[in-house]
Amino acid sequence: MIKVGIIGSTGYTGQELVRILRKHKEAQIIWYGSKSYVDQKYYEVFGNMFRIVENICLEDDMQELAALVDVIFTATPQGLCASLVNEAVCNQVKIIDLSADFRIKDVNVYEQWYGIKHASPEYIKEAVYGLCELNREDIKGARLIANPGCYTTCSILSLYPLLKENLVDITSIVIDGKSGTSGAGRGANVQNLFCEVNENIKAYAVATHRHTPEIEEQLGYACKEPVVINFIPHLVPMNRGILTTAYADLKQTLSYEEVRNAYEKYYHNEAFIRILDKDVWPETRWVEGSNYVDINFKIDERNGKLIIMAALDNIVKGAAGQAVQNMNLLFGLDEGMGLDMIPVFP
Amino acid sequence: MIKVGIIGSTGYTGQELVRILRKHKEAQIIWYGSKSYVDQKYYEVFGNMFRIVENICLEDDMQELAALVDVIFTATPQGLCASLVNEAVCNQVKIIDLSADFRIKDVNVYEQWYGIKHASPEYIKEAVYGLCELNREDIKGARLIANPGCYTTCSILSLYPLLKENLVDITSIVIDGKSGTSGAGRGANVQNLFCEVNENIKAYAVATHRHTPEIEEQLGYACKEPVVINFIPHLVPMNRGILTTAYADLKQTLSYEEVRNAYEKYYHNEAFIRILDKDVWPETRWVEGSNYVDINFKIDERNGKLIIMAALDNIVKGAAGQAVQNMNLLFGLDEGMGLDMIPVFP
Amino acid sequence: MIKVGIIGSTGYTGQELVRILRKHKEAQIIWYGSKSYVDQKYYEVFGNMFRIVENICLEDDMQELAALVDVIFTATPQGLCASLVNEAVCNQVKIIDLSADFRIKDVNVYEQWYGIKHASPEYIKEAVYGLCELNREDIKGARLIANPGCYTTCSILSLYPLLKENLVDITSIVIDGKSGTSGAGRGANVQNLFCEVNENIKAYAVATHRHTPEIEEQLGYACKEPVVINFIPHLVPMNRGILTTAYADLKQTLSYEEVRNAYEKYYHNEAFIRILDKDVWPETRWVEGSNYVDINFKIDERNGKLIIMAALDNIVKGAAGQAVQNMNLLFGLDEGMGLDMIPVFP
Amino acid sequence: MIKVGIIGSTGYTGQELVRILRKHKEAQIIWYGSKSYVDQKYYEVFGNMFRIVENICLEDDMQELAALVDVIFTATPQGLCASLVNEAVCNQVKIIDLSADFRIKDVNVYEQWYGIKHASPEYIKEAVYGLCELNREDIKGARLIANPGCYTTCSILSLYPLLKENLVDITSIVIDGKSGTSGAGRGANVQNLFCEVNENIKAYAVATHRHTPEIEEQLGYACKEPVVINFIPHLVPMNRGILTTAYADLKQTLSYEEVRNAYEKYYHNEAFIRILDKDVWPETRWVEGSNYVDINFKIDERNGKLIIMAALDNIVKGAAGQAVQNMNLLFGLDEGMGLDMIPVFP
Repeated sequence: MIKVGIIGSTGYTGQELVRILRKHKEAQIIWYGSKSYVDQKYYEVFGNMFRIVENICLEDDMQELAALVDVIFTATPQGLCASLVNEAVCNQVKIIDLSADFRIKDVNVYEQWYGIKHASPEYIKEAVYGLCELNREDIKGARLIANPGCYTTCSILSLYPLLKENLVDITSIVIDGKSGTSGAGRGANVQNLFCEVNENIKAYAVATHRHTPEIEEQLGYACKEPVVINFIPHLVPMNRGILTTAYADLKQTLSYEEVRNAYEKYYHNEAFIRILDKDVWPETRWVEGSNYVDINFKIDERNGKLIIMAALDNIVKGAAGQAVQNMNLLFGLDEGMGLDMIPVFP
Repeated sequence: MIKVGIIGSTGYTGQELVRILRKHKEAQIIWYGSKSYVDQKYYEVFGNMFRIVENICLEDDMQELAALVDVIFTATPQGLCASLVNEAVCNQVKIIDLSADFRIKDVNVYEQWYGIKHASPEYIKEAVYGLCELNREDIKGARLIANPGCYTTCSILSLYPLLKENLVDITSIVIDGKSGTSGAGRGANVQNLFCEVNENIKAYAVATHRHTPEIEEQLGYACKEPVVINFIPHLVPMNRGILTTAYADLKQTLSYEEVRNAYEKYYHNEAFIRILDKDVWPETRWVEGSNYVDINFKIDERNGKLIIMAALDNIVKGAAGQAVQNMNLLFGLDEGMGLDMIPVFP
Repeated sequence: MIKVGIIGSTGYTGQELVRILRKHKEAQIIWYGSKSYVDQKYYEVFGNMFRIVENICLEDDMQELAALVDVIFTATPQGLCASLVNEAVCNQVKIIDLSADFRIKDVNVYEQWYGIKHASPEYIKEAVYGLCELNREDIKGARLIANPGCYTTCSILSLYPLLKENLVDITSIVIDGKSGTSGAGRGANVQNLFCEVNENIKAYAVATHRHTPEIEEQLGYACKEPVVINFIPHLVPMNRGILTTAYADLKQTLSYEEVRNAYEKYYHNEAFIRILDKDVWPETRWVEGSNYVDINFKIDERNGKLIIMAALDNIVKGAAGQAVQNMNLLFGLDEGMGLDMIPVFP
Repeated sequence: MIKVGIIGSTGYTGQELVRILRKHKEAQIIWYGSKSYVDQKYYEVFGNMFRIVENICLEDDMQELAALVDVIFTATPQGLCASLVNEAVCNQVKIIDLSADFRIKDVNVYEQWYGIKHASPEYIKEAVYGLCELNREDIKGARLIANPGCYTTCSILSLYPLLKENLVDITSIVIDGKSGTSGAGRGANVQNLFCEVNENIKAYAVATHRHTPEIEEQLGYACKEPVVINFIPHLVPMNRGILTTAYADLKQTLSYEEVRNAYEKYYHNEAFIRILDKDVWPETRWVEGSNYVDINFKIDERNGKLIIMAALDNIVKGAAGQAVQNMNLLFGLDEGMGLDMIPVFP
C-alpha cells in the first residue's frame, strides 16, 4: 500500500485527488495538508466527504511529511513546491508537483511568465514532465514529476501527432481555449463569484497566459524546432471541463485518412485518449469526472486549415487524474489503476 | 454474473443505470432497450459511453428479454411496464420497475392521479415497494419491485422516523420540494429548453404532483393512519439533485437530542443515509453522483415547528442507484455493491 | 431635477439604482459613493456602464453629501446608515435606507437578530417602512424611509390581503423562500463562488434569517395581532429573482373566488402587483429586470391549506426599484416614473 | 406612429422585438404573428408580457398584414420570407427580414449553404444588407432589409476597419465564435434541453456554419477581394450573448495606436459600438439586454498576430435591436430611438 501525503488538499484539485485516491486499491492517504483549514475536519470543508474521510487537516509541512509517506502530491500555488524541495526530501519520497514550478526547463522563461524567482532551479533539469502518454518511460524512474497544466494537457495531446509527423505549419498555430470555473481555484475573489461568471463568457490573460510557454516547449520537442503559438483562454460558466479549439495550416493537402492515421499511430493503444468518430466533436459533458481526453479534427477544404478540438476534465486528466496516473507509473502499478471512472452525465 | 436487461436505457435514468451497472462486479448488461434509438450504437446517444459500451440499442421487448436475462429494469413512462408484465415474464425474471405503475396499492388512486387505466392491477398487491431501508426483508423475496420516485424517497426517508415514533402532528405536514431538471426526463419539450429553465425558479404541478399519494401511502404505513400532506415541487436550474424542506408541528416540546435519537434509532446502521452534524444543512452538491441521502432537522423553538431537510441525487438514490440496491437485495449480494460512489464536487 | 447621491453604489443593489436612475427623467445622480473603489471610474467597476457613466467613485461621506443632494440612497451593510444619520442630515435631505437599520420598530428585536448595537435608535420611530403599496400616504411626508428587504417584500405583499381579511390561521404560516445569488451581495466569499453555488440548492440561515422579524412585524400590523412564522430561505443557482412559497391554513372553507376577491380588493389598482390568472404560477423569469411582483394562490381542497406563491426581482422590486418608487412618492412624482421596465426574457 | 406587424413573434427574437417596440415612442405593434400559438393570448406564451400585451396571436399572413401596417418584421425560419414577398407586398410596406433569405447576393451560395431553393431570387439584388453602421445611407431608401445574423454582426463589425484599411492578411482570418443558447431558437429539441447544454461547451457546425458566407461576403466588400475565413461556433451554457475571438496576421508591424486609429476612424461617432480601453476585454455580461457591440484587440508581439474580440447580445444587436435600428433609419427617425437600454447586470 502506497502511503500518500497531499499538500494543499483543500483546493478543488486537492479534493479531486482525495476523491480518486480514496477509491485506489493500492494507495492510502495519511496526510490531508491545508493552509487555511488546519485542525478542521476534512469533511467540514467538503461535505461530500462526510462519513468517508474522518481525518483532520494538517499543516502543509513537507519535511515532516517526507518521513511518513511514499509520495507527496503538491496541489499548491506556484512557488511553494520549489521552496520546499531539497535533497533530503527527494531521497525519501517521490514528489508529484501539480503546480508549474518544474514544468519549464528554462528557468528564465519560468521567472518571466510567472513573475517569481525560482527557489530551487537545481531540480528543474531532473524533474520529468508528467504527460504520461508522451513521457511514460522517463516518468517511471523519476524522483520529481512536474504534472502538466490543464490547458496544456489538452493542447499538447491534441497537437502532438501533427507536429511529430510534420503535418502543419508551426508558425500558424492558434489555440482558443475554453475552461470551466474550477480552473480558477477556490480562493475568495470577486471575479469568480457566481453572479460575475454566470451568464457571461470572456477571454482573459489575452496572449499572456502562463500555460503558453509550457505548450510551446512541449510542442517544440515534438517537431524539434522552437514553436510560438497564440493561446487565448476563455472562462465558461460551468464547473468543470476544458475545450480547446486549435487552428493550423496543413503543410500540404491531406485527406481525412492521412490525418487520422497520424493520430492512430501515436494513440492507438492509449486507454485515456479517445479519437472520436468522423464528424463527432468533443464536448466537455462527455468527459466530466473521467480521465479521458476526447480529440477530433476537421479539414476545412475551402482553405486547407486544420481545426483540432479536444475536451477533458480540467481537474481529472488536467490535474488530479493525471497525477494519479503518474503515481501509478512511478510505483510500477497498472497505469490506469483507480482511473476507470465513467464520465458522469448529465 | 447477473444478466441484466434495461427497457428504456436511453433516458437519463436508463443511462445512469448503465453507468452504475458497468462498474458492478456481479452484473452484466446484455440488452440496451430503447424506443427512439433502435439500431443506433448506444455511445452515439451518450457520447460519454464511447469506448465503454459498444452495444446497439434494441427494441423494448420484454417478452423476448425475459428469456435472456435474470433481471429487467424498466426505466420507461408510466403505464408501459404494467402493459408488459404477465405470469410468463414474472416467472422467468425479476422485474425492477422504475416507473410508478406498481407503487400505489390502491388502483383507483393510481388511476386518478396518473389519468391512465392500469393494465395489470392483478400484480399491484404482489409488487414490493422498493425503498430498501424500510422494506429490506420483503424485497429479498419479491418477483416485482416498484422502485420509489425521487421526491418520494427523499420525503419518506426524512420523515419516516418522526411518524413511526409519533412525534409530529400528521395533519400539519408540508413538503416543499426542489428538483434539478434531469427529473423532467429527456423528451423534447419547450418548457425544458435551456433558456426556459436557466435563470428561473418556479413551482409546478401545484398540489397535483403524482408523487403526493405515494408519499402519503408510505407515511401512512409508518404511523398506521391515513396521512394527507401538502407537496409542492419546484424546478431548479441545475442538472441533478433534489432537496426537500418539510415542515411539521411537533406534538409536544422536544429537545434536539430527542428528535436526533429518533433518526439514530432507525438509521444508525444505514450505509446510504447520512444524518448530518447539528446545524449542518443538506445541500445537493454534497450528494451528487452518489447513492447518499443527507438528512437534518431544526426545531424552531419560537413556535414548535420542526423543519426537516433532505438531499439526494434524483437519478441515483432517487432512481437508478436505488434500483441497483434493490437488485443487490433480490440476488443476495451485498446491498451496497457497486454503489460506493463518492459524491462528485464541484 | 432631483439631485441624487448613492452611498454604496458599487454593490449589486447600488449598481441597479444607477441603471434605473440613469433612465429616470427627473433624477440626476451626482455622487457615486463607494468604500472599495474610491477614485476609480465607475465603469471600470461595472463594464456595462462604459460610455454611460463617466463619474469617479467617491467616498461614502453622508455629511458632505447632504449639502449637495436632495436625496441619499444608502445601499450599504447593516449598521452604516444608522451610524451616519443625524438631525443636520435629516433636515437637509431625504434618506432612503436600503439596509435594515430602520425597518424594525423594536430596537431590541433589531439588535437581537442583527447582532449589532443600533447607533441611532431615536430615528426608528420616525422612519417610515417603505412598502409603497401599503404605506403610500405615510411615505409621502417622511424624511427617512426604511426600504424593505427582498424576501420581505415578496412575503408581505403576497400574504397581506389574507391577514387583513382574517382568512388564514396566523399560527400556521410557513414561508419557503428561494433566492438568486445576487441577494448575497458582491463581497468576496468562498461560499458564493461560482463552483460552490452552481449545480446546488441549499437552505441557509434556517429559522434564523434576519428578514423573519421584519415579515412578522408587518404581517402583525395587517391582522392586528403578533404573528410568528417559519421562514426558511434557500439559495438558487441563478443571478436574480426571489420566489416565495407560503403555506397557511384557511380559517374556513373558501372558494377560489373568495380568496381571489381578497387580493383584488387590495391590489386591483396596483401597477406593480400582478395577480396571475387562475392556475398560472409565478416564475422569476417573468419578472426579471422589472418592478413587478407576480402573485397567485392555490387552495388544496384535500386539506384546506392555502398555498401562496410570489415572484419578484430581488434587486428591483426587492431593493433598488422599490427605493426609486419611494423616491417618486417622496418628491410628488408619478409613483411609477422610471420603473416601467418590461421583464427581460430569456 | 409607425404601424408594425411581426411575423414570428413567438420565438426568442420575436419576443425581443416586442419588448423593444413596446417602449418605442413612434411604433405600435398591431399584429403578433405566430405559427404555433394562433388564437392564444400573447402573454400566455410569454408570461413577462402579462398586463403589458393583451393581444391575441394571429396567423403569419403577410398579404393581409401588408394592407394594415407600415413595416413587417419577419422573425421566421429560413425560406419563409422569400416565399411570401411579392411586388404587391413590397409596394405597400417596408420589410425587415431577420432570416437569412436576402443576406447573400449570390443565390447559388445561399442555396448551397442553406440547402433550400430560394423562392424569390429576384428580390435579392434589391435587398439592402442592414448592418446600419456600414450601410446607413442605402438602408434609408430600401423597401426590403436583410437584417444581419448575430455571429455576422459581431464578426464583421470587429474586423471591418482592419480589412478596409488593409492591415491584415485576409487569408489568415480565423473566427472562433461563442454563443448563448437563445441563438438556437425556441424549437423543442433534445440537443437544446437544459441538461444537455448546462455544464457543457462544444463546437458545432464545424466549418459548415451558415453565417460563414455572409461574413465572407461583407468582409470582401471591405477589402475589395474575395475573403475565405475559418469560422467555428461554440455553444455556451448561458441564455444570451455572443463573443467572437478572431485571429489574423498583421501585414506589417503596427503599434497599438495604429490599430486603434483604424477603429476610431470608422467608429468614432457610432453610438452602439464601444471600443474598450486598452487591455479591457469584451464580456457578454456587459452588453446583455442592450444594443451595444463591445470591441477590443491585442497585438501579440511575439509573432505579429492580431487578436480581435467582440461581444454583443445576440437577440438585441444581433437580431431585434438591429432590426429596430433599421426601422428607425427607414422611417427617418433618430437611429437610436428606443434602443438606449443600459445593459442589465448581473
